[in-house]
Amino acid sequence: MDKKRILAAVDHTLLNVDATWEQVKTLCDEAVRYQVATVCLPPAYAAEAVDYLEGKLPVCVVVGFPNGYSTRAAKVFEAREAIDNGAAEIDMVINVGFLKSGRYDAVLGEIRAVKELCNEHILKVIVECCLLTEQEKIKMCELVTESGADYIKTSTGFSKGGATRDDVALLARHVGTGVKIKAAGGIRTLQDAREYLKLGASRLGASSLVELVKKEEAASS
Amino acid sequence: MDKKRILAAVDHTLLNVDATWEQVKTLCDEAVRYQVATVCLPPAYAAEAVDYLEGKLPVCVVVGFPNGYSTRAAKVFEAREAIDNGAAEIDMVINVGFLKSGRYDAVLGEIRAVKELCNEHILKVIVECCLLTEQEKIKMCELVTESGADYIKTSTGFSKGGATRDDVALLARHVGTGVKIKAAGGIRTLQDAREYLKLGASRLGASSLVELVKKEEAASS
Repeated sequence: MDKKRILAAVDHTLLNVDATWEQVKTLCDEAVRYQVATVCLPPAYAAEAVDYLEGKLPVCVVVGFPNGYSTRAAKVFEAREAIDNGAAEIDMVINVGFLKSGRYDAVLGEIRAVKELCNEHILKVIVECCLLTEQEKIKMCELVTESGADYIKTSTGFSKGGATRDDVALLARHVGTGVKIKAAGGIRTLQDAREYLKLGASRLGASSLVELVKKEEAASS
Repeated sequence: MDKKRILAAVDHTLLNVDATWEQVKTLCDEAVRYQVATVCLPPAYAAEAVDYLEGKLPVCVVVGFPNGYSTRAAKVFEAREAIDNGAAEIDMVINVGFLKSGRYDAVLGEIRAVKELCNEHILKVIVECCLLTEQEKIKMCELVTESGADYIKTSTGFSKGGATRDDVALLARHVGTGVKIKAAGGIRTLQDAREYLKLGASRLGASSLVELVKKEEAASS
């Protein structure tokens, strides 16, 4: 699997709490140069990044991120605002506490409400695998499939753990046809990236893969 | 300093991503029994907790939490919804990236916009001290003072570090009169609590202090 194909699957991500606008611009420049899938950014930088990119690359914006326990109305508000600001894709976090409380209708209802307004825009649903039991992961595969969302995504990168090979394989076994998988959190080598794609992921959330390719190029030039 | 006085300053806090409604109810029961200041909860449980508490204790709700990089409009939306749901106090997170980008007007504008709709409700502004330089902490003391918010709060508890004695002392030296201090994150002993209050904090965000007092009571009975 060549680097180009890997990069084309990467959501080049900057979600540090203290990320500056200068850092966001650098991320956008790298993203365009290395032809990744999207740049993945906080809501507060979405509008500026869309302007800065001038349509060269889609912007993906996180919603209810990272803790997922804002209200349904707030998630809908954030998603609508992000799309109004020009975002092409939305990565929303489920309410893990509601899942653990057995409130499946509430979890599903939130995803559906956001998907409804996303319309043709891609919606990825972050289920934070590291906090879930195997049964809960399977339940989320069912709910995300039922919701009509486009992707199930493993992790925020802000909890106890990121993507694992076991989780990506499990999600691939249990999601319905039409639901894709995004692996995110702790993807730091091209070997990681290759393996996740082989296991069934179509998208990779990563902060350092582009940097890695840049360094390899510099070393071989 | 007796335990009663310490407990009366505690925002009894449950902000785990996977907190269930059963756990929230237990927290509320403990909070009433031990006469703390408030229960501090995620937005998604605010309305239910207000109903459950039947006015026995105020509910404090977090906004833009914990990463602080949702938009100003989203923070305003969340705060308004929380107050409509019966919250008495709002703990909002600043946009640390904007602060680091030198966008002081944007940081101040967000706080002012939320304070405006909070009206007589208490607004605490979380500045996430562990990510800030000393100059940035002092700047935030000035901006929070200028904004008309009620409290400056050290930490979310979700970043690299929580409250420190040095930070509480520094905030106490630099905030204007009328601005109180909430220390939060990693407060796990009554000795910690006493020291923060002596250094100038008026409120303590803590998850385990009530548990500690409960255990001491059990041991001495």
